Amino acid sequence: METDNAAPCERFSPEVLGFMQLAIDQAKLALDSLEVPVGCVIVEGGNVIAAGRNRTNETRNATRHAEMEALDVLLVQWQRSGFSAAEVAQKFSVCSFYVTCEPCIMCAAALSIIGVKEVYYGCANDKFGGCGSILSLNSSSSEACIRSVSELAFSAHCLMDVGSY
Amino acid sequence: METDNAAPCERFSPEVLGFMQLAIDQAKLALDSLEVPVGCVIVEGGNVIAAGRNRTNETRNATRHAEMEALDVLLVQWQRSGFSAAEVAQKFSVCSFYVTCEPCIMCAAALSIIGVKEVYYGCANDKFGGCGSILSLNSSSSEACIRSVSELAFSAHCLMDVGSY
Repeated sequence: METDNAAPCERFSPEVLGFMQLAIDQAKLALDSLEVPVGCVIVEGGNVIAAGRNRTNETRNATRHAEMEALDVLLVQWQRSGFSAAEVAQKFSVCSFYVTCEPCIMCAAALSIIGVKEVYYGCANDKFGGCGSILSLNSSSSEACIRSVSELAFSAHCLMDVGSY
Repeated sequence: METDNAAPCERFSPEVLGFMQLAIDQAKLALDSLEVPVGCVIVEGGNVIAAGRNRTNETRNATRHAEMEALDVLLVQWQRSGFSAAEVAQKFSVCSFYVTCEPCIMCAAALSIIGVKEVYYGCANDKFGGCGSILSLNSSSSEACIRSVSELAFSAHCLMDVGSY
């Protein structure tokens, strides 16, 4: 509930909220499969090009977070298409990730390494978050930023600013 | 070259050095394949149970570091064997990773999430290292430690202390 004394926070377009809804749909699928409910979609040029959901229980692999699942969909496609490493990097550089929960440190580091454009996340991850809560791996001013300082870092936006409720 | 005024550093057993040599062999295979030469072996009960090498160029996937390759070998095996999530966690908790270069922040976070016993690494990773150089994701005293504070963190040992040369 927004109040008059709400802290200033970002406002988001219907398009952004629509993509986040699709990420939430993925999270619901995860919940239906008895997984921790986190979902992700990847958007390029206004179109969803991949989706993923947390599959850590199903795979017995604690690293199979929603972001890793979604980006692997693209990596498999692009590998099959014969794209070069430079072409893959170029394609990721225009991709936006929508995740229901702030990427953890591992995922934020992975997104930094592959060089995505931006991340929108639904809520903060106060225990493990790598995009502002515990570390800011997205920020070029962070000591722990993975990307070269000559490159742009990725921007991160939190849709649900709990402080304003 | 060790000198009289060398800084005190850990001494390692022939067994540890032997496993590191096997990791170096993996790194050489990576170099032969025109990859950044990083190799890894995973040891359980004195036996090598998996090996991996950097395959980022071949896969066009910048996250396919040697540690991720090696641990995926086990995860595929253990998934096929029908192990439960708890059994997989138990098995990783007694595994030692030998990596030629300090795990990056992403890999150190992944090792923390899956809960390995320990990591031996050949040299520090001054740009991206997650086990002491930039962050200490292995340490339970680190704010960024991924594992629950009720659990043990993993220990990390650097074989080549450049400061002593």
